Amino acid sequence: MRQDPARLSFEIAARDGDARTGLITTPHSEIPTPAFIPLATTGSVRGISAAEVAGVGYEMVLGNTFHLFLNPGPERIAELGGLHEFMAWDRSIITDSGGFQVFSLAHGGVADEIKGRRGKMPGGSARVEISEEGVAFQDLRNGSARFLSPEVSMQVQGALGSDIALAFDECTPFHVDRDYTARSTERTHRWLERCLAWHEEHGPERQAVFGIVQGGVEDDLRRESAERVSAAAIDGIAIGGTLGKGKEQMYGVLDVTVPRLPVTAPRHLLGIGEIEDLLAGVARGIDLFDCAMPTRLARHGVALAPEPESRFRLDLAKARFATDRAPLVEGCPCEACRRHTRAYLHYLSRNKDLTGARLVTLHNLTYIERLMAGARDAIVAGTLAGYSAAILGGRAPWGAPQAP
Amino acid sequence: MRQDPARLSFEIAARDGDARTGLITTPHSEIPTPAFIPLATTGSVRGISAAEVAGVGYEMVLGNTFHLFLNPGPERIAELGGLHEFMAWDRSIITDSGGFQVFSLAHGGVADEIKGRRGKMPGGSARVEISEEGVAFQDLRNGSARFLSPEVSMQVQGALGSDIALAFDECTPFHVDRDYTARSTERTHRWLERCLAWHEEHGPERQAVFGIVQGGVEDDLRRESAERVSAAAIDGIAIGGTLGKGKEQMYGVLDVTVPRLPVTAPRHLLGIGEIEDLLAGVARGIDLFDCAMPTRLARHGVALAPEPESRFRLDLAKARFATDRAPLVEGCPCEACRRHTRAYLHYLSRNKDLTGARLVTLHNLTYIERLMAGARDAIVAGTLAGYSAAILGGRAPWGAPQAP
Repeated sequence: MRQDPARLSFEIAARDGDARTGLITTPHSEIPTPAFIPLATTGSVRGISAAEVAGVGYEMVLGNTFHLFLNPGPERIAELGGLHEFMAWDRSIITDSGGFQVFSLAHGGVADEIKGRRGKMPGGSARVEISEEGVAFQDLRNGSARFLSPEVSMQVQGALGSDIALAFDECTPFHVDRDYTARSTERTHRWLERCLAWHEEHGPERQAVFGIVQGGVEDDLRRESAERVSAAAIDGIAIGGTLGKGKEQMYGVLDVTVPRLPVTAPRHLLGIGEIEDLLAGVARGIDLFDCAMPTRLARHGVALAPEPESRFRLDLAKARFATDRAPLVEGCPCEACRRHTRAYLHYLSRNKDLTGARLVTLHNLTYIERLMAGARDAIVAGTLAGYSAAILGGRAPWGAPQAP
Repeated sequence: MRQDPARLSFEIAARDGDARTGLITTPHSEIPTPAFIPLATTGSVRGISAAEVAGVGYEMVLGNTFHLFLNPGPERIAELGGLHEFMAWDRSIITDSGGFQVFSLAHGGVADEIKGRRGKMPGGSARVEISEEGVAFQDLRNGSARFLSPEVSMQVQGALGSDIALAFDECTPFHVDRDYTARSTERTHRWLERCLAWHEEHGPERQAVFGIVQGGVEDDLRRESAERVSAAAIDGIAIGGTLGKGKEQMYGVLDVTVPRLPVTAPRHLLGIGEIEDLLAGVARGIDLFDCAMPTRLARHGVALAPEPESRFRLDLAKARFATDRAPLVEGCPCEACRRHTRAYLHYLSRNKDLTGARLVTLHNLTYIERLMAGARDAIVAGTLAGYSAAILGGRAPWGAPQAP
């Protein structure tokens, strides 16, 4: 790895076991870690404005190269001053590389695939051609031929002007054989070198680049990938691809991978955001997480709550909430909880009212930000195990962490 | 009319020609008039929260008896503490009577009908039976038989606990003959007496009741209706039904009606909200307006702007906004204008992004509130004619009113 504070610095302030808390500094803001990163996939956190995302306390959002590449296009965003200015977000932005989405088209639903669930998405298409050079595909909106490669992805991310660009990788799915995974992981490593070479010559000087560790669920491939990516001139490391069928396999992949990453590099676990996975990732030394879950659930009327037996979810459409005058979660400082009842949010959810989507989005993002803030405090206090146990036992993620 | 300050008081502070500015006081808040009332049809101003509506400066919203009667039902809202508490809105609420919607079912689209545009809506149904007793109709969501009458409407509005209830009327459409209009208007007067009798005995003590003037576009019927309604024990007067085919006919109806209303009663022009109609209404002595326009347009990506030649509308989906880095309207204090460009809102609008709907809703409501605040100031200054001319000439509704 390289360490260039003009692009990105990472200071670790405290450790608790393998967990660590610290501060990532980008040209736009300081991000206390471990941190969750809300998705601003197409240039907005859907339903709320950039000012509101900042109001909840987030310092970084994730923009999506694939989507922004197709619409409105990197030239347009560059013309409008870059992604920060386009979406009026003056804090940090990380952009994914487009790899996940483009291989989603190829494999038919990577989101399911990497979790080990079969089932082709309707979007899945044989019109994707993967070669050493890159990936040719069709823009499903208008049928036009498009091409993404390590160089194109870095070029797009350069035009977007994100603080952190992710290298273009093949997001290896679950239902492929070891041989495919091995060849795919090797190609991801070659693509990383091309990304870095392009970025070194043409990329924005102050943009950091994270490499992505692949290797599927094969321990030796993960180990090798961790070492190969760590050896490259990257500013941080993301862990991508399939993490297996269940939580044990996911944690197994982390246990194999994380110890081989440089201690001083920020570590980003891609696409993971379930409450227990966040806590498990933090305990294993992960610094950054992103996931569609909190915002997507909110748009479907599902609120996060300290209820481990229901996967920390309240499905507000359920009849039992129709006359429930309690807030979503007692003590939550978000607007939904300070001002509104479960009964009202139940009603809005059943009505598919935009106001409901907005309020529950604010709540879910508040819940996750509080969860991570509590984890940061607990690491400083050396009480992460107790904090996690209390959360997994049904405590709300606010208030002082419990003694270990 | 009656005047009972425990329900409602109205103090006129200044006049400018027929226009007047003053303060309506309800048990929940003080409403500076003339005022626009945003629609919270189903218990929310769609896309924004009650706190945000208050933040824009509004003191009253309009809830819809017909919709809330069917879902979630008055019993549920009463159980949850009334409509104010249900939607966490602690300022004033006016509820319409359900007459407009129920006759919409009967006549097939009253919204079009009262504006003189023909064309049956798909929702139009022969399953509506109008009798002297009331209106029987089908709940189109589940086929169940429902019934609204003067008494039921007042009972529902009583359960909702609005500050101002509107009497149950027949919203006379445009394409009926004079005889129908005359008979319908007579029935509306009989229904008003039934509303008041029910309310006197069973209604909430601190709820005011407004009668509704009908009479279509027949001058003599409007005159007679204005006098009949004014003579009843009402707290204020709404003007309803068709106002004709175009603006001239609408203003003609106002010119015939308003002079026959008691000077001291608040006057509400139902369902009117176009910029020039607001100004024309204010000049003729109207105190209250409500309309779906600003919020509905916003959800379709249309922003209000000082552009009279395009009916004060910017259709944000238009390609000319794609790279426009200006705010929606220069100097507008709303979040959309303070923080975002037309280019971004164009992009969000094309994407049908919830964030865009929310931001433009805030903008449109801000625009209208500023327009009305400017009119109030201009009446005090005796410069309403100059203010209106400047707005209609393309000036934004903020800044000091021009000299007359």
